[in-house]
Amino acid sequence: MIGSSETALIRRIGKLSGPAVGKSGLLLGIGDDCAIFRPRRAEDLLFTTDLLIEDVHFTHQTHGPADIGYKALARGLSDIAAMGGEPRFCLVSLAIAPSTVDGWMDKFFSGLLRLARKYGTVLAGGDLSRAEKVMCDIVVCGATPRGKALRRDGAKPGDLIYVSGRLGKPWQTHLRPVPRVALGLALRGRATAAMDLSDGLSLDLRRLCEASAVAAELHRVPLARGATLDQALHGGEDYELLFTMPPRLTPPAGTHRIGRIIKGQPGNVSLDGHIVPALGYDHFRK
Amino acid sequence: MIGSSETALIRRIGKLSGPAVGKSGLLLGIGDDCAIFRPRRAEDLLFTTDLLIEDVHFTHQTHGPADIGYKALARGLSDIAAMGGEPRFCLVSLAIAPSTVDGWMDKFFSGLLRLARKYGTVLAGGDLSRAEKVMCDIVVCGATPRGKALRRDGAKPGDLIYVSGRLGKPWQTHLRPVPRVALGLALRGRATAAMDLSDGLSLDLRRLCEASAVAAELHRVPLARGATLDQALHGGEDYELLFTMPPRLTPPAGTHRIGRIIKGQPGNVSLDGHIVPALGYDHFRK
Repeated sequence: MIGSSETALIRRIGKLSGPAVGKSGLLLGIGDDCAIFRPRRAEDLLFTTDLLIEDVHFTHQTHGPADIGYKALARGLSDIAAMGGEPRFCLVSLAIAPSTVDGWMDKFFSGLLRLARKYGTVLAGGDLSRAEKVMCDIVVCGATPRGKALRRDGAKPGDLIYVSGRLGKPWQTHLRPVPRVALGLALRGRATAAMDLSDGLSLDLRRLCEASAVAAELHRVPLARGATLDQALHGGEDYELLFTMPPRLTPPAGTHRIGRIIKGQPGNVSLDGHIVPALGYDHFRK
Repeated sequence: MIGSSETALIRRIGKLSGPAVGKSGLLLGIGDDCAIFRPRRAEDLLFTTDLLIEDVHFTHQTHGPADIGYKALARGLSDIAAMGGEPRFCLVSLAIAPSTVDGWMDKFFSGLLRLARKYGTVLAGGDLSRAEKVMCDIVVCGATPRGKALRRDGAKPGDLIYVSGRLGKPWQTHLRPVPRVALGLALRGRATAAMDLSDGLSLDLRRLCEASAVAAELHRVPLARGATLDQALHGGEDYELLFTMPPRLTPPAGTHRIGRIIKGQPGNVSLDGHIVPALGYDHFRK
């Protein structure tokens, strides 16, 4: 980055990301104190923010700069998908570090912006800095018709539990998770609860059950190629959707039924009659 | 934080921040994949994001945890003020580090939330992680009536240039800058351009002039107690508002006229007939 000033950098990112205007609702993008967004009538807006930190969420050995840009946005899009939202725009805060070589930032933004275009998400702004390790915080805004967002707290005893794909993919090789945006849209008005699997099924299903004040029994867990049951239960970062639906409804194609919501101690998850400990990823467990 | 899990932490922060509902428009706050926000009719929304990184923007020697929480939010509120917005909600991504002692995070959030309440800003969500240094990214959403946001690109030759306070306060002692939200609201429909001073007058005025395709001549710069002219011109982080108004309008009380917009090479800023170099704070200048 030697010789390039912040103003020049911001201009370059602005060029990469294209003009702000269009059906996204963004009236003013990169370059002012704030982005300006005009909401559509009768819509609710969804907001999620996700940190991605060197040596915590990725390493330069496992992830190239474009993979890191991709993953930063994919994590946010996965949260929007989990709420049944249509992505609208994103903001990216990025601190680069001595560990990044010349051209790193351009590749980071190409990876991010390629995914953004695919999902109709405009880069609306952000912040740039330097730090000792690379860190990125992504904000994604999505939209749903009023009152139609999928939440975690609506699961009812008798509902069946589904996941959108096989579980237990290791994050070191699962470089480009596909955000399940289309599935999220298809679940609006049908799923009683939904969330994305970013910290492992055992922990995330427990959270869904706690929010809904129900328990769950797992019947089978679809394993990713090479994954063990332990990895599928407790491994993080699958970025599949976890959702519940009443048994009378047919689930979308390609999803896997894994169990059933039951009455019981809120948050309890069992498999074959045994309680499954919530061992998924937690930055603050000691 | 030993012994406390992420879920418990999030619950504690949720309790500190209070319920989501109310006139903020927030329908669902902390605890799901996304926050849900219902925009009011005929409003534009403003979004800003700001990084705050240990040993870049603060040190533990100069800033206690409550100061850091305050400053993280104050930076975002200052951007909302600069666009004439009314703050609505914020999202906070925070990575704590080995440098933080027990109870640090609670104090950080008390400092942040006290300021948030003062400005009617609800904490809507965020992300938590660990890293080697403390880092925080804040997102603030504000609102203006449609088309009324203050931008950088409307300054016209003949407009007078104002700042909201004396300049050159050193960031090491300027722990609790006051976001100029009320002033921003008062400038709606009156200022032709506005921005906040976060990187130093010389650099920030240059940016405003570039955006508006005009030049500027400075007549006098009000100095903070003990500040030199160089510190007032090039020091960062005053968090005062810089704005331009036609000469026929009376500026709000307490503001200082510092110069005039002129035709000329876009971005040029002069003082006493000499070009002022843009030496304000730039993470990427080398």
